Amino acid sequence: MAKEATNTVDTAFPRGDADLFDGRIRRLRRDLEKNSLDGIIIGSSSNLFYLSNLRSSAGFLLVRVESTVIHLIIDFRYKTAVNDLLEAGHAPSNLAVVIVAGSYEETLAKVIKNLAVRRLGVEADHMSVRLWRWLSERSGDELVPVNELVERQRLLKDQYEISILRQAGELLVCAFHEALDVVREGFTERAVAQAIDQIIGTKGFERVAFETIVASGPNSALPHAHPTTRSLQRGDLVILDFGGVLEGYCVDMSRTITVGPATPAASRLHQAVMEAQLMAMAAAVPGARLTDVDGAARSVLAKHGLAEKFGHGTGHGLGLDVHELPRVSRSTEEKTQLAEGDFVTAGMIFTVEPGVYLPGYGGVRIEDDVLATTSGIDVLTPSTRDLIQV
Amino acid sequence: MAKEATNTVDTAFPRGDADLFDGRIRRLRRDLEKNSLDGIIIGSSSNLFYLSNLRSSAGFLLVRVESTVIHLIIDFRYKTAVNDLLEAGHAPSNLAVVIVAGSYEETLAKVIKNLAVRRLGVEADHMSVRLWRWLSERSGDELVPVNELVERQRLLKDQYEISILRQAGELLVCAFHEALDVVREGFTERAVAQAIDQIIGTKGFERVAFETIVASGPNSALPHAHPTTRSLQRGDLVILDFGGVLEGYCVDMSRTITVGPATPAASRLHQAVMEAQLMAMAAAVPGARLTDVDGAARSVLAKHGLAEKFGHGTGHGLGLDVHELPRVSRSTEEKTQLAEGDFVTAGMIFTVEPGVYLPGYGGVRIEDDVLATTSGIDVLTPSTRDLIQV
Repeated sequence: MAKEATNTVDTAFPRGDADLFDGRIRRLRRDLEKNSLDGIIIGSSSNLFYLSNLRSSAGFLLVRVESTVIHLIIDFRYKTAVNDLLEAGHAPSNLAVVIVAGSYEETLAKVIKNLAVRRLGVEADHMSVRLWRWLSERSGDELVPVNELVERQRLLKDQYEISILRQAGELLVCAFHEALDVVREGFTERAVAQAIDQIIGTKGFERVAFETIVASGPNSALPHAHPTTRSLQRGDLVILDFGGVLEGYCVDMSRTITVGPATPAASRLHQAVMEAQLMAMAAAVPGARLTDVDGAARSVLAKHGLAEKFGHGTGHGLGLDVHELPRVSRSTEEKTQLAEGDFVTAGMIFTVEPGVYLPGYGGVRIEDDVLATTSGIDVLTPSTRDLIQV
Repeated sequence: MAKEATNTVDTAFPRGDADLFDGRIRRLRRDLEKNSLDGIIIGSSSNLFYLSNLRSSAGFLLVRVESTVIHLIIDFRYKTAVNDLLEAGHAPSNLAVVIVAGSYEETLAKVIKNLAVRRLGVEADHMSVRLWRWLSERSGDELVPVNELVERQRLLKDQYEISILRQAGELLVCAFHEALDVVREGFTERAVAQAIDQIIGTKGFERVAFETIVASGPNSALPHAHPTTRSLQRGDLVILDFGGVLEGYCVDMSRTITVGPATPAASRLHQAVMEAQLMAMAAAVPGARLTDVDGAARSVLAKHGLAEKFGHGTGHGLGLDVHELPRVSRSTEEKTQLAEGDFVTAGMIFTVEPGVYLPGYGGVRIEDDVLATTSGIDVLTPSTRDLIQV
């Protein structure tokens, strides 16, 4: 084990200054007003990090319209981390830190009671039915469930986020190139996945963004296969799908490899997916509907008779979560009103990852992360898409 | 990268037969009846795996009292995996598989409507406010939030689970011994953490159970520190806290190391925590209150004047989740009625992990996983607790 490999990043943590977080909180306050709310309880850890710069697996943030003071409820484990953020000026202004006494929920209930906020919102997607009912009962008022308020703000990345995601994309491509050395006939899927995880670590990522997928031969027909003890065999298609987290931000890419020379059938499959991916990217012009980006990939595959073999969406947003807004997929419901997040907009970052899966035979997926700009898309994970033979 | 190292496991997946899962479902049905429910929607992935043997990041299981047919709603990605389980007889009997058309939520709503279950429960801790309101509106009836129904069943491990967790504990100890070779002066916390992750992988674990903690010097005073680029220095206390997942089950252990000879202060701190851990284990006799197990650790630390430096609970249950029932901590509320999960009971598996944290100086934590038996506890992660010098 080397101390640190080359091609790593070693930035000073934390980054992001008070202005950045104050701006995000200001926008949230504006959105609260639009929704006729006097405040909101933020409980999702990604949204809490986005607004406060604190990375924690627990905590609540209480933001009000009437006051610039924000209450951060955390347990003692995070006390030092929060103090460090505050001292270094890497946190929003006017943060009032409340350390949990007893349980989180009891403490939150007390803060709500003391502040006596009238129309208080909660994150409908992140609060459990149990906590919502309990808190509503305690506070005497029913808390107002709100959908995706912070998530819609996170839909468009700011320069700070884009710079991290760009860097992360470049590092992930480096990891991919190095990973090609460990994809070898006779190695098990699990051994390859572990080696890839290690490479991702040596590049300076904090951790992998999700369980690395190494799906070989027939297993590559399973879009979300877990690595098994199956050994890679000559003639296999192997899907590699892996990602890393840098300063809290996720990047994610997939490539498909062939062990030994590709059969004509495998080449055709790969060619079709590559074409689908390129057409989807070409369709991602500013103002285009995201369902049409998905449709572009889908119609290429239909042309090849593979429409039924592509069962997932073309892509998903990514950032603090590895799956976030926007959705790049077929619309599942008749939408009468289209919203901001339904159109390609400069600042969106999402994956483009069509795939085809033939049960018993194998599959192909090619995935890149792209940034929508005012003039089209920038690929954040630029690397060859050819069917590489190992 | 070796193909596979020694000391690994390579069991045939999946395990668990129809009888095992049918038994679990039968118990759930009984609990539904006790709660005057006609059925329940299971949405938590751990509970879904526990009842169906399907490991997925999405899916719903609908269990009814009146019928032995269970509906499993999954998307196409899991179709092959479910078919494999069914063909191999590693799934509950009478499983009706419903493949998602459109979205999960639309499909679930349709199944509920078709089956016309009257008093239908939902997992209050796992269903979001948004989905609950939406489904209730769709089905015309308010779905009944239920607390921890499956979790309370999972509180007592069956023989199948105990055998996996025993094996996992032994492998984690092997990983720890190997990890001692990579804890070295001059290495960064992050490099050590990555090396530990890799060792955990080579032992046959599917993945790490949580982000490995390597907290050195002053960072060891942060109970949930993320590994940083700080290099290990002579005189540091270093907390290692790491875990692995084997066949879906989590094990978790911590040890504290000293870089170079321990100072008398560090030795005293370590001695106090070790004593606290041993006393807590000794208190874990069948029928003891779990709050008293916590209290045993706490009073040892109080005797050493360290009561205020131990801010977390003494332990937590573990199994399919790395934190699950039972709780081994102070009671936060006055409980008028004690329940089954409040007493040490044969079949419970939990951690015993007191720690002390002196801001600016450092900390010590010692953690083992234990199985409660009818005659006391079995340590699943048996390894020296001495302050090892590297």
